[in-house]
Amino acid sequence: MKPLKFKIRETFEGMRTGVVETRHGKFRTPVFVPVATSATVRALDNRDLEELGAEVILANTYHLHLKPGDELIKKLGGLHKFMGIDKPIITDSGGFQAFSLGFGMEHGVGKIADNIFLEGLREVNFKANFKGEKWAFVNDEGVRFKDPYSGEIVELTPKKSMEIQANLGSDIIFAFDECTSPLSDKEYTAKAMERTHRWAEECLEYHDKRQALFGIVQGGEYRDLREKSAKFIAERDFAGFGIGGSLGKSKQDMLNILEWVVPLLPEEKPRHLLGIGAVEDLFNCVERGVDMFDCVAPTRWARRGHLYVSPPEGNPANKFRIHIQNSRFREDPKPIDENCECFVCQTYSRAYLRHLFVANELSYFRLASYHNLHFILKLMDGIRESIKDGSFFELKKEWLGYI
Amino acid sequence: MKPLKFKIRETFEGMRTGVVETRHGKFRTPVFVPVATSATVRALDNRDLEELGAEVILANTYHLHLKPGDELIKKLGGLHKFMGIDKPIITDSGGFQAFSLGFGMEHGVGKIADNIFLEGLREVNFKANFKGEKWAFVNDEGVRFKDPYSGEIVELTPKKSMEIQANLGSDIIFAFDECTSPLSDKEYTAKAMERTHRWAEECLEYHDKRQALFGIVQGGEYRDLREKSAKFIAERDFAGFGIGGSLGKSKQDMLNILEWVVPLLPEEKPRHLLGIGAVEDLFNCVERGVDMFDCVAPTRWARRGHLYVSPPEGNPANKFRIHIQNSRFREDPKPIDENCECFVCQTYSRAYLRHLFVANELSYFRLASYHNLHFILKLMDGIRESIKDGSFFELKKEWLGYI
Repeated sequence: MKPLKFKIRETFEGMRTGVVETRHGKFRTPVFVPVATSATVRALDNRDLEELGAEVILANTYHLHLKPGDELIKKLGGLHKFMGIDKPIITDSGGFQAFSLGFGMEHGVGKIADNIFLEGLREVNFKANFKGEKWAFVNDEGVRFKDPYSGEIVELTPKKSMEIQANLGSDIIFAFDECTSPLSDKEYTAKAMERTHRWAEECLEYHDKRQALFGIVQGGEYRDLREKSAKFIAERDFAGFGIGGSLGKSKQDMLNILEWVVPLLPEEKPRHLLGIGAVEDLFNCVERGVDMFDCVAPTRWARRGHLYVSPPEGNPANKFRIHIQNSRFREDPKPIDENCECFVCQTYSRAYLRHLFVANELSYFRLASYHNLHFILKLMDGIRESIKDGSFFELKKEWLGYI
Repeated sequence: MKPLKFKIRETFEGMRTGVVETRHGKFRTPVFVPVATSATVRALDNRDLEELGAEVILANTYHLHLKPGDELIKKLGGLHKFMGIDKPIITDSGGFQAFSLGFGMEHGVGKIADNIFLEGLREVNFKANFKGEKWAFVNDEGVRFKDPYSGEIVELTPKKSMEIQANLGSDIIFAFDECTSPLSDKEYTAKAMERTHRWAEECLEYHDKRQALFGIVQGGEYRDLREKSAKFIAERDFAGFGIGGSLGKSKQDMLNILEWVVPLLPEEKPRHLLGIGAVEDLFNCVERGVDMFDCVAPTRWARRGHLYVSPPEGNPANKFRIHIQNSRFREDPKPIDENCECFVCQTYSRAYLRHLFVANELSYFRLASYHNLHFILKLMDGIRESIKDGSFFELKKEWLGYI
């Protein structure tokens, strides 16, 4: 029996809704997958995820390998049992950290080069922790990391990544890839892509066949490389596909890359755009055929005081966010978002949440994370509905102001 | 109409169960009151409190006066509306901070002198923040504080404390008192007590008559002073009584103080032992006629990794706590406490919680606080039941190993 089934339900102008079925249940697509880096969606618990309607989560192989260790998790019955969660779990391959701790730190960039301080928070964070030093080194065998906790060298190879993910026992796993930087030149990007292709074949060989393996398309911002990579990966027996790596120098580059890559991927398999999840991106990427997204944005922005608001207050210019610390919220008795039905918006005022944020109260992090995740998951519900009933462009216009 | 009604339900060997009725509903006694210092029980939310069965909470006047400001809270409709909570709320008077930021820091002690590092966490905390400097100065008019945020001088007087608590709109308020140190000599303690008595009369005059005012008995560890104070306060028209200040140099001193004071307080009014809440203390102090407790212990210990366990694993020697960081929990699939029915114990293993604690994950703080508060509230339910059915000493024996 295949570890993953994907059924397409409705289609509309190149977009589709579907259901992915795994050993641990189903999730509907297009889907936004909350990130549980260290086996927890930061500041939230399992009951929250249930209530929020999160049907699937993504945990990070690199982080769990270091802490608490994938061997320990295996011993305790795997990630589902360890987390006490009975939903599909995705793990990434650790390849992204080869970038974020390597070129990401060296070049000071994120997945898209032009907005590092807005979108590339992961890198800003790492830089703040590790003082700009490079912590990952790639060669043809794999990646060597310095463990930030112990200072020891950690090696990840395609085989090792498959072993770790097998220990974790996740439902959907990713092939180990090299994620290049938007500042990598074409020569380097091509070399990294060839390496990623060799690694993809190793992963196909070594992975636990009870897990659904997704291949990752690389090739940076270069059309011929992206097309070559898409064809190479599409031909192989993967359960689905990730679109990874550098997504160019602007959001438009990212959309171009999707327009090159998606048509080359087999229609009957799900497509996951790795690490992307801003409101505007969800519309534009679903429109180009993406089925799955994961991103730390909702919870990370929440912790930093940025809370999502819907139109008309939210718009592409303010990225659908208010910053709760702003003094204009000091006496504001309104909920974060008047259109939101989450318990945070039903219970608390902006003035109260501002107080908690300013006082650095732990409760703030939970309430803010809850709201932001609720907001994005509900938006995804709406997008899914709009594909079903053909109103996608009306919804997009309402949110983005353009089609 | 009186702002507080107290009905005694059952009595057993000097102990009693009862119901306190306020403008915002009722709570049953003996009661453990969770502390919501800055208008939030740290790391928890209102739904948690509801689910935990917390019938009343206590917020801190001093903290809320500084941040976000009692005027702001008044403008937003008072503390209940600000917090979105419809339960009785108690506020303290700010007097304790005159101690903890004054003599507490100067003497390096808590409410009981011999176990500062175990019980006087508040002081340890303040000292860590303020480096041993004294931040509060008392004279006959009141107390002058340095605001740790702005560095400005903040003055609290009996009248000012009543005004702030009126702005907060809490249901039960405390008279402004001077809490002495266990290292204060008798002369100073007597002087502070006389001051507290004058302030008590000012508070009776100035307080908002819609709020139930509790007087506070002082007098340190000196029997004649405690008895004098108890008689003075007991004669006045307070809705209830706090037993405050220095509780001596050992737990036995604290119990002696209760044995001197409680018999002098009118039976028909509730008695609140301020700032005490360890498991052993709850038994011993209920036994001596205490109706109400408040303490940051359950949530503060939780945040530091100390999680409550019931007998036989929990006992007076380990203070009914395990420290989750201990390596023996690394692979422990058991819940924190096998007798506990809280959702944390129903869902997560010690191994998982240890991982969250070691990784400094925000979710840890919530789950740990939830369990510890659940534990103490359930224990208090048990104590209340045991008074009802006359099995108090059996329960005490089961937990403490002695009667």
